[in-house]
Amino acid sequence: MKIIAVDPFYLKMPQITDAADGTQDTLLVRIQTDDGITGWGECDASPLVSLAVYCCPMSHGNIINIRDSLIGETIDSPDDVIRLHQKVLRNGLDIQQIHHAYSGADIALWDLIGQKVGEPIYRLLDPQHQSYAKLPYASVLFGDTPEETCRIATQLREQGYRAAKFGWGPMGKFGQQNDIALVRAAREGMGQDAQIMIDAGVVWGEDYETAYARTKRFASFAPTWLEEPLAPDAIEAYTALSQQNPPVPIAAGEGSGTYRMAEDLILHGGIQFVQIDVGRIGGITAAFRVRQLAEQHGVQYVNHTFKSHLSLAASLHVFATNESFSLLEYPAAGSALSQRLTVERLEVGDDGMVALTGKPGLGVHVDTGVMDAYLAPVWIQVGNDVIFEPAEL
Amino acid sequence: MKIIAVDPFYLKMPQITDAADGTQDTLLVRIQTDDGITGWGECDASPLVSLAVYCCPMSHGNIINIRDSLIGETIDSPDDVIRLHQKVLRNGLDIQQIHHAYSGADIALWDLIGQKVGEPIYRLLDPQHQSYAKLPYASVLFGDTPEETCRIATQLREQGYRAAKFGWGPMGKFGQQNDIALVRAAREGMGQDAQIMIDAGVVWGEDYETAYARTKRFASFAPTWLEEPLAPDAIEAYTALSQQNPPVPIAAGEGSGTYRMAEDLILHGGIQFVQIDVGRIGGITAAFRVRQLAEQHGVQYVNHTFKSHLSLAASLHVFATNESFSLLEYPAAGSALSQRLTVERLEVGDDGMVALTGKPGLGVHVDTGVMDAYLAPVWIQVGNDVIFEPAEL
Repeated sequence: MKIIAVDPFYLKMPQITDAADGTQDTLLVRIQTDDGITGWGECDASPLVSLAVYCCPMSHGNIINIRDSLIGETIDSPDDVIRLHQKVLRNGLDIQQIHHAYSGADIALWDLIGQKVGEPIYRLLDPQHQSYAKLPYASVLFGDTPEETCRIATQLREQGYRAAKFGWGPMGKFGQQNDIALVRAAREGMGQDAQIMIDAGVVWGEDYETAYARTKRFASFAPTWLEEPLAPDAIEAYTALSQQNPPVPIAAGEGSGTYRMAEDLILHGGIQFVQIDVGRIGGITAAFRVRQLAEQHGVQYVNHTFKSHLSLAASLHVFATNESFSLLEYPAAGSALSQRLTVERLEVGDDGMVALTGKPGLGVHVDTGVMDAYLAPVWIQVGNDVIFEPAEL
Repeated sequence: MKIIAVDPFYLKMPQITDAADGTQDTLLVRIQTDDGITGWGECDASPLVSLAVYCCPMSHGNIINIRDSLIGETIDSPDDVIRLHQKVLRNGLDIQQIHHAYSGADIALWDLIGQKVGEPIYRLLDPQHQSYAKLPYASVLFGDTPEETCRIATQLREQGYRAAKFGWGPMGKFGQQNDIALVRAAREGMGQDAQIMIDAGVVWGEDYETAYARTKRFASFAPTWLEEPLAPDAIEAYTALSQQNPPVPIAAGEGSGTYRMAEDLILHGGIQFVQIDVGRIGGITAAFRVRQLAEQHGVQYVNHTFKSHLSLAASLHVFATNESFSLLEYPAAGSALSQRLTVERLEVGDDGMVALTGKPGLGVHVDTGVMDAYLAPVWIQVGNDVIFEPAEL
């Protein structure tokens, strides 16, 4: 079959704040083929900047937009999805945003080909293994105070979560005592039997000494990991931190906008958990390469997901077939847009676990009525040419 | 003084081809202050995608556009330029294109502050050392055939160039014999006394064995380096290549869109020359950090420049004060747009060398009349809001 249309859609909440809440807007990508199959994907990235990568005028042979690279192409097998990934990245060699932007299209192509052949994506990626249910950890922001954090944690426990990650907000901003109080509150609210994770939200930059000092103080609350204590690019600082053998495992990787960034963290950063956002690193194709690298190096692969259940499903297909990768970041809070966007949701089962259904492609579908309600139509004109205008939903 | 306006301008030639010629369009950035000083910078990146980073709506606290981060800010010293670099990158943590886009603004801020204090930028960066003239190497594309390449090389020699780099085009695409013939033609045209450099234009991807095999065949023509034999992200392949001790030095780095990418190449890639594009890596601030790292590790810093003399001047300020970094990539061919864009040019002197003038700021100025002739006005609308429209020149 041939690709006949590639359309990014910018969706947003009516009000956007500067909170570290990635669900306030999104970019969905729809790809249509000449035999009537439609695939969908989602980017976790600036919607406008990423949309521009779909329509930017050619600058030369290394700046060619995603639409021009895809439209008219043949797609009949998973090999074509991988071939197109290489083609688009090569044509966009000098577009820094290419990986963020292409993530949605790559996911949509996997969704397409799964529908075409009647298989879930995880089976196309790894036909030898079955899919395993994962333990979802609720992913929420810290409350502004320890008290509020304790309330949030208590609510999550009452909802049945056995694991939860608390992140960003006040962590790292008001001194060591407040940081410790926040972690203590998360532990108290979740109870002693739960897993808790701490997300420092890159707050210590390159200051690995402070990050190390915090791990020593946080260790008595037994968090599963301390996430992103340092800036995504501060690999040398991660190396220095890991060489001190911190008593809490270190997690990072959501900032990986390229395969190399994840590889760099795994080979040189000394992390124990690599957290990949399938909506940033270049889609399922790139994320699956990181999963394989993690397997080779004894690092735990975990998804990073703070978008809709379309992204959640895409994330889970990448590592569903490895039983030892047992945790699933599960967006437990988020905007009405992100909560309502898909027809199906990956619900937490009675056993407290989350599993894929085995349906073809992603196995979840976009609710176009909801899309319509949150759509922000975009028009872009360069010189005399309208190079982007809204597509029909 | 306060920043009152930040305006990107998209300029382009009437016809754009897919040749590896980065001078066919450009993005200039103008920053104005409340005391009437104006600074200019240039990005080597997709103009539209980078422009979107100046105006994209906020998504959350990690996706805030460059204008919102800069307008209203105080700028009175070089420390402010460095502070604003950190602020913009932090606010744009989840905008992958932030470094490409911010490059122009960072250069404009250095231009501004240099004018404000009456000093050339190199003196603000490194007050202890004088500026040194550099040997310019003409940077051109290979001809389509060895014969055409020889003609181009002969012309360059007749123009007085003592060094020239030939790149992209047919290199690596038609087998070993043609590759060798291309290098032989470059050497014959330039003569035995000249320096020649070979730019493979990432053509061998991750295939370091072929890259190594080529260095063995190219060595008899004594090129100064083989540039970008491998993909920018293929650091493990660079490591494998360098471990074989190729008989031609390896150069790379133009694809570094972040400081870490350059650091990664220097620490793990085993390169001998690091080539930084000040219009991609985040401007003069980021490039100067790489220069300092290169000094620590005994690697030669070289500019990558394939834009106007505004970019050439910005590139040279970064390393002018290190005498041992003696080569300057000098765009010897390029579009009328790139050739005419600045009022002053960094001309090759009678001694065959190129030097900065010591004038304040960049020391070269944009010709707004020429800009006007090549301007591609941009309008962007998101929902009901026009978020970008052309500024007055």
